[in-house]
Order: sequence, then C-alpha cells, then structure tokens
Amino acid sequence: MRLIYPENLEDIALGAAVLGTGGGGDPYIGKLLAIQSIREYGPVTLVSADEIPDDCLTAHAAMMGAPTVMVEKLPRGEEIVTAFLALQTYLGRRIDYVACAEAGGLNSTMPFTVAARLGLPLVDADGMGRAFPELQMVTPTMYGISATPLAMADEKGNSAIINTIDNHWTETVARSITIDMGCTAMIAGVSMSGRELKESMVHGTLTKCEEIGRTIREAQASHRDPIAAILEVTGGFRVFKGKVADLRRRTERGFARGEAKIQGIDEDEGSELVLHFQNEHLVAIRDGEIIVSVPDLLAVLDAETGMPITTEGLRYGFRVVVIGIPCDAKWRTPAGLELVGPRYFGYDIDYVPIEQRFAARLGDR
Amino acid sequence: MRLIYPENLEDIALGAAVLGTGGGGDPYIGKLLAIQSIREYGPVTLVSADEIPDDCLTAHAAMMGAPTVMVEKLPRGEEIVTAFLALQTYLGRRIDYVACAEAGGLNSTMPFTVAARLGLPLVDADGMGRAFPELQMVTPTMYGISATPLAMADEKGNSAIINTIDNHWTETVARSITIDMGCTAMIAGVSMSGRELKESMVHGTLTKCEEIGRTIREAQASHRDPIAAILEVTGGFRVFKGKVADLRRRTERGFARGEAKIQGIDEDEGSELVLHFQNEHLVAIRDGEIIVSVPDLLAVLDAETGMPITTEGLRYGFRVVVIGIPCDAKWRTPAGLELVGPRYFGYDIDYVPIEQRFAARLGDR
Repeated sequence: MRLIYPENLEDIALGAAVLGTGGGGDPYIGKLLAIQSIREYGPVTLVSADEIPDDCLTAHAAMMGAPTVMVEKLPRGEEIVTAFLALQTYLGRRIDYVACAEAGGLNSTMPFTVAARLGLPLVDADGMGRAFPELQMVTPTMYGISATPLAMADEKGNSAIINTIDNHWTETVARSITIDMGCTAMIAGVSMSGRELKESMVHGTLTKCEEIGRTIREAQASHRDPIAAILEVTGGFRVFKGKVADLRRRTERGFARGEAKIQGIDEDEGSELVLHFQNEHLVAIRDGEIIVSVPDLLAVLDAETGMPITTEGLRYGFRVVVIGIPCDAKWRTPAGLELVGPRYFGYDIDYVPIEQRFAARLGDR
Repeated sequence: MRLIYPENLEDIALGAAVLGTGGGGDPYIGKLLAIQSIREYGPVTLVSADEIPDDCLTAHAAMMGAPTVMVEKLPRGEEIVTAFLALQTYLGRRIDYVACAEAGGLNSTMPFTVAARLGLPLVDADGMGRAFPELQMVTPTMYGISATPLAMADEKGNSAIINTIDNHWTETVARSITIDMGCTAMIAGVSMSGRELKESMVHGTLTKCEEIGRTIREAQASHRDPIAAILEVTGGFRVFKGKVADLRRRTERGFARGEAKIQGIDEDEGSELVLHFQNEHLVAIRDGEIIVSVPDLLAVLDAETGMPITTEGLRYGFRVVVIGIPCDAKWRTPAGLELVGPRYFGYDIDYVPIEQRFAARLGDR
C-alpha cells in the first residue's frame, strides 16, 4: 500500500503509453485529469492485489471509444465518476476498490480520477497487462467473470446500464452506445470480488507502468539510450528502426483503424515495416512477413527520446524505433489466444511468442 | 372500467392494424400472444384515463424495431415482461398501470400480455393515436415527459436501461441497441404519473381500435361494404383504389423502409399512387403530388374485405383501397408538427389537414 502523488502520475502515464501499444488513449490528457483530481481531493492509495480482502467488491472504470476522437473531445473527469456511481447504485452495494481495465495512457490514469474523487483505493492490477481494442478482451473473461452490469455515461448527460449474456455481447451493445455517444464514453463494469480479481487479473500493472516511465525519464536525464533502457525494463525486443513513410487512419465502427508504413533506416535500411492497428497495434509485417503479432505488444517509440507514440500521434516523417514486448502468460493459453490471438483479428497465422521469433536476435537487446 | 377477454382482442387487434397505418407490427402475432396470456392469467382490466388516480405511476410497454423482422422473430411474451419488471426495479417503485406507446397490430396488443401476466390494469390510451416509427414521436414528448429511464430486453437474455437528456437521444441510443439485439427489442419506459398521462396522451385509443375492428367484422358478416364502414367509424377519406404494381422494401438502420406503387383501377384508372413508408406510411403521392402526409394516417385496405394490410404484408398484385384518417389534434399543433410533420421526414411541404385536402370530395365517404 502506498500513496500516489502527481509526480508518480507523470511516470505512470508515460509507462502506460508504452504498454498501451499505440492505443489506450493519450497519456497527456489522462495525466492532467488525474493530477487535477489528486490536487483537489488528495493522494490516491494504491494497493497490491494481494492486499485486498477476498470478499470486497471491485470494479473497472475506463474510457471506451476511438483514441482519435478522445483527443478532440476531452473528458472533464466527472463523467467517469457518474458511470462508476451509476454502477454502484445499480449493484446496490458499495464498491470498495477501483481497478484498471487496461494499461494505456488514458485508461491507466482515468481510474485515479475516480479513486481520488470518491476517496477509494485503487488496485495495482489491470485486465490486460496492455491495451486491447475490445471490451471482452480482458483476462477476467477467461475466468467467466461478466463485464456486466456495465454502466456508461457521456459528457452530455446520457447514460445506460447494460446486462448481456456474455462479454462479446457487452462489446457489441456498448460499442453501439459509445458510437451514439460520439465515439467516446465512460464506462464502469467488470465488477468482481477481491478473490476473483486476484485470480483473474494481471498483477502489478501500475507499478510496472511507473517503472517504465521512470526508466525513460532517468535515461533521458542522464543521456543514456532510453530505448535500450525500455527494452531492459520490459524484457522487450528491438523490432525495427525507420521513418514513417505512409499513414492511413480512419474512424470506423467506433474504432481508430489503419496502417503505418515505416521505411527502414540504419540497420534496417532497404526494408519496410507495416503496422496494422485497431486502436492498438495488432501486427508488424516486415517485407511481407508478420514478425510480431497480438497478443504480444508492439510499441512505437521516438528514435531519439524513446517517448512512446500513440497511433493517433503518429505523423509522416517521424523517425521511430518499433519494439515488441512479451504479453502476460494468461494470453498465451488456448483460451487467451481465442480471445486475442492473431486469428481473432483476421490474420490466418499461428501465434509465435516474440521470444521465439527473436531468439536469434537476443543480442539486439 | 371493463374486462377484456380473448374475443375483444380479435377486434382490438384488427382495428389497431388500421390505426397502425402500415406499421405497428403484425396484428396476428400480437393477438395470439395476448390471447394466450389472458387464457393463462385471466382477463385484463381496461380502465379509461379519467379513472386512474393522479398520483399513480404508469409506463409504456412496447416492441421496438423493424416490422419486417418482427414477423420472422416471434416474441414469446416473456421478454416484454422482463423489460417492464426491469423498469420497475430501476424506478424502485411499483408501476400501477400499463399503457400503450402506440396503436398498431402488435403494440396495441403486447401491453395486454404485460397486464395479464402481472395482473395490472391497462389504461385505454396511447402515446400517438396511431403508429409512428420513432420513439420520441409520442405526445408526451410535447409535454416534457422523458421516455427514460427506458428498459430494453431481447429474447437472448440481453438487457439495458438507458437514461438520456431528451427523447430524441432515447431514440438514437435505443435504436442502436435494438439493431444489436437483432432489429427487434422489447421496451418499457415513458413512465409518468396519472395526472401526466391524462394531460399528455391520446385517450380512448383501445376502445377506438375495438370499435373499428368490430365494424369491419360486422360489415363483413352482413355483406355490407367494409371500407365505407371503416371510413364512417374513423372519419376517414377514400384516397385511392388500385393494384400494387411495384414494391421496394429494405431493412435500413433498424427500420423497414420502402415505397409501394399502386396503379389506379375503377374511378382511379390512369392514375398512380406512390406510398413512402418508414415502418409506417408517411406520404401518399398521386401522380407526383403529395395528397396525404404525416401526421394524418394512411391505411391500405384489401379492396374486397376491408382488412388492413401492413407494409410488410403488401404484395405485388394486391387490389387495395388506400384511405386517409385525420390524426389526433395534438399532432396538428406547431410542437406536434415539429415532431412528426412532413418536414421532419424530409418532405419539404407544409402540412395540410386531410379534411381540407379532401373537402371537395367529401361525397367520397
């Protein structure tokens, strides 16, 4: 158990943007909102999953929608509290702990806003260990934990509570409502007991985010190579270095979808890397061959500063290093791959863990 | 106050299909479900709006979606009770009376299923005095009565409760959820007090439906002209007689939309009438000129039997008589025309009450 102050949030938001794998929202906005809430309401108590009672009630608070729209339609911080309280009223029972649905610039920091404003502790865990585009893509789905009742709220004053027969249906209905709400909505759901959280979620995600963020900051301050430092702290691999040569982005069915073409430079001169994304990066295709795929993480970093770049922040001409990071072991099970493996996203390949693909290149670290 | 037995429902469903103006669902299905519920749970108490206490709580129960899909995906009768009870639980207060959202084959009879199964009285009133395609198109909208909280349920077990800032937003969000639920959903909402119901709704609709249905039945039995009898009981006008020559129908954004071309016969030989519909008939265009428009009612009747034909029941070659019926006076106010006038549906004409258009032809009655 420890207290989180604004300075911790700087590192958390930065590290979360790396694990956000291109999605999960803009780290700057989420950080500002969380810092503002902490300044107003006091520091947030962060507890490890092991510290919470088995019989407590926990729930996720998150933002749903297209990151491309999120940067244009800034949340005020109240809507997510509205959604959370609506869920609590519906459940008819106090929710004891807030938890994160995913790691990502926005979704790792928005829960701090709820925690600060309602004076609730936040659990150091999340439902993905990264960001994924769809709502059912949380490890609790594999443990039979329902995402519903799910409360939703927008900035205009519209709200909804949905109950669905499974988490895929939650995604379907909640996505439509999100689109109606203007392609972004605040949600609260995936309520579960402390015991269920311990079993089903990814532990220590926020501490890991903070560690990654601090590593980047310290490497920058001491003029060390920030990318090498990120690879070390994440156990990741250097996938490609290049210049953004082409970018297609569209907001489609409530998602930011697109491709980025990166022309190799330095050691990757003469090669091309294509990234496909649906909010988050899904696959990296080098000269026609998929070399990293979901559920492993892909992050695009500024080649000089190591700063993570979200898909909506990518611009033509950026010099970037693409890295890959092994996903949480829960995603590598048959149930995990059914939910978030390459085939779910329409890529007809078997998943090969990034460590195997890059085994020969471990020296690249 | 009187009791409604299966035999009453035959007439109610038939008359409701006339006021359903092509939409409002298939009278056969709604009737079967209501009759089945009454056989199982006993007759339904129908009370006039004036009989209910000012401080009682009333709510609408209805089916939302595309009639074309409703005939393929039969409701079982339980889903609408689920939606109604979900609303009651959400409101945290017993709902004292069931009411009808609209007149229409299905939506005039489905509320009987709720009333019978829950042992609640049904109010002899509705929110349109006819059927309209969109949820905000109820007279209570003009009185500032919110359609939300709105409970929704499908046959699979999915449900939702939405709260919106106005009734147009209710339509937007509920329509999306309905589409996800497979283009039909059961809804309960527009809760209001007895006093509000008396002021804002159209009184006596179910009795009027029954009267129209009985008139058709008796005219058929006594070999009198059923269409003349319908015109008399509804105060309607004979608009056109012809043969269905062309029919376009598509399910689009959750609605059954389309056009029917009717080639004139007998006194209308040489002319053509085109009906545009969005679930319900919107305008009748005779040789290029709109001669009847929303909010007045258009009904297509079988030329021989006088039986009303819903838009999804129309077939090439049918010999039909199209009639027009004056709408409730509430719709003829500026607020009413803003909600359901021709311009709302994209027709750039001023609304002219059917009595004025057909003044010269009153002899046609």
